[in-house]
Amino acid sequence: MTTTTKAQMSQDELKKLVGYKSVDDHVLSGMVVGLGTGSTAYFAVERLGQKLKSGELKDIVAIPTSERTREQAESLGIPLCTLNEKSKLDVAIDGADEVDPDLALVKGGGGALLREKMVEVMAKKFIVIVDESKLCDGLGPGFPLPVEITPFCWEHTLGKVAALPSLAGCEAKLRLGSAATGSAVDGTEPAVTDNGNYIVDLFFKSPIKSAPAAAQELKDTCGVVDHGLFCGMTTAVIIAGSDGISVKE
Amino acid sequence: MTTTTKAQMSQDELKKLVGYKSVDDHVLSGMVVGLGTGSTAYFAVERLGQKLKSGELKDIVAIPTSERTREQAESLGIPLCTLNEKSKLDVAIDGADEVDPDLALVKGGGGALLREKMVEVMAKKFIVIVDESKLCDGLGPGFPLPVEITPFCWEHTLGKVAALPSLAGCEAKLRLGSAATGSAVDGTEPAVTDNGNYIVDLFFKSPIKSAPAAAQELKDTCGVVDHGLFCGMTTAVIIAGSDGISVKE
Repeated sequence: MTTTTKAQMSQDELKKLVGYKSVDDHVLSGMVVGLGTGSTAYFAVERLGQKLKSGELKDIVAIPTSERTREQAESLGIPLCTLNEKSKLDVAIDGADEVDPDLALVKGGGGALLREKMVEVMAKKFIVIVDESKLCDGLGPGFPLPVEITPFCWEHTLGKVAALPSLAGCEAKLRLGSAATGSAVDGTEPAVTDNGNYIVDLFFKSPIKSAPAAAQELKDTCGVVDHGLFCGMTTAVIIAGSDGISVKE
Repeated sequence: MTTTTKAQMSQDELKKLVGYKSVDDHVLSGMVVGLGTGSTAYFAVERLGQKLKSGELKDIVAIPTSERTREQAESLGIPLCTLNEKSKLDVAIDGADEVDPDLALVKGGGGALLREKMVEVMAKKFIVIVDESKLCDGLGPGFPLPVEITPFCWEHTLGKVAALPSLAGCEAKLRLGSAATGSAVDGTEPAVTDNGNYIVDLFFKSPIKSAPAAAQELKDTCGVVDHGLFCGMTTAVIIAGSDGISVKE
């Protein structure tokens, strides 16, 4: 930080900055902490491990949102539990694929959207950490919106989702290959989530007009288990940009 | 019918009456027909098979809501398809576990609620066939309300469901044994639905105050896939009672 200007910092250095800051600013001893998944959340987990090891933080229990995060946290000696043991979280920290001006998010490129939402919706504070490339004026065009659906008659459900009024103009595609590889189509078989479901990715040319309306219509659809729109959940977004770190609340 | 008074008719004879009447009154040649599951719907399927065989009905395609119904329909020579081929149904016919004065239903004691709802929500007309014992002033006390949830952290989701404001006072129990045996607890392992999910049965001592509010809160809950409340879907209920057959619309 001392001799490097922000413009010279790599993407990974920016991710590290916001990951560390999220823990430094929002995690206190005694808290129950939700740990997100992905390359930015990785650094928040790393920082939490450091501060527990140094004794700067004590009595933390963390709830991971994926197997990958669980393994990282375990390797750092972070005490873990599940939502079954602790269902009230003081704070959850995670990255996002897109953030709109109302702090609504698209998440779940990695296919873990249901577990992430189950954990993060239970947190008093939900802190989102991103680099500025994730900010957008409207959700949709920048990143496909994933929708987790039941496998039974998935073609029918895909058609129903694509026809929802709030999602007008989207193109819906069943995700193939591995759910964990994001929206990359790298196989011929449907990708299956940790919960045994399929993922439909919705591609937009113009922004979704109302993310909350779209979220409601999606969740109301019979056959939809959940979706990657996170609306009304974000407490603050910590953003790493070329002009430094900023926070939106 | 001719020499037997209604009071002398057995439960099965009553079920047959309403099952046959639903097909006689609502199915015309050329229709796409949704076929429900259970001991009353059985007779509707039987009648449809008879009328196709006799030539009284032609060009019918039917969509079954379960494997059991598919097998019965197939054995009767009824042409079948799935929602993937035909997603607009002219009529769907099914039984129910409870019917309230607004014609909201509790369904899914048999564990097939998601497939039933996926099919029946697509029907222009949804005809419900019951005997009068299924009528109630308020849903809940007469039959446990099934909720299909994802297995991940099911204890947490069970707790969230039981704490929903619109379901105040319910007792929530994970269904054990086979999902297809209804709410009978006949095993030590969680019952698994056709979709790989678990079922939580909600037991009520007093009626649910607002079925539509409860339906919305349930579907909005992260971890809930769907539930056995069918609100705003019923076109008509055909009821077999000791004083004859009646219809509520």
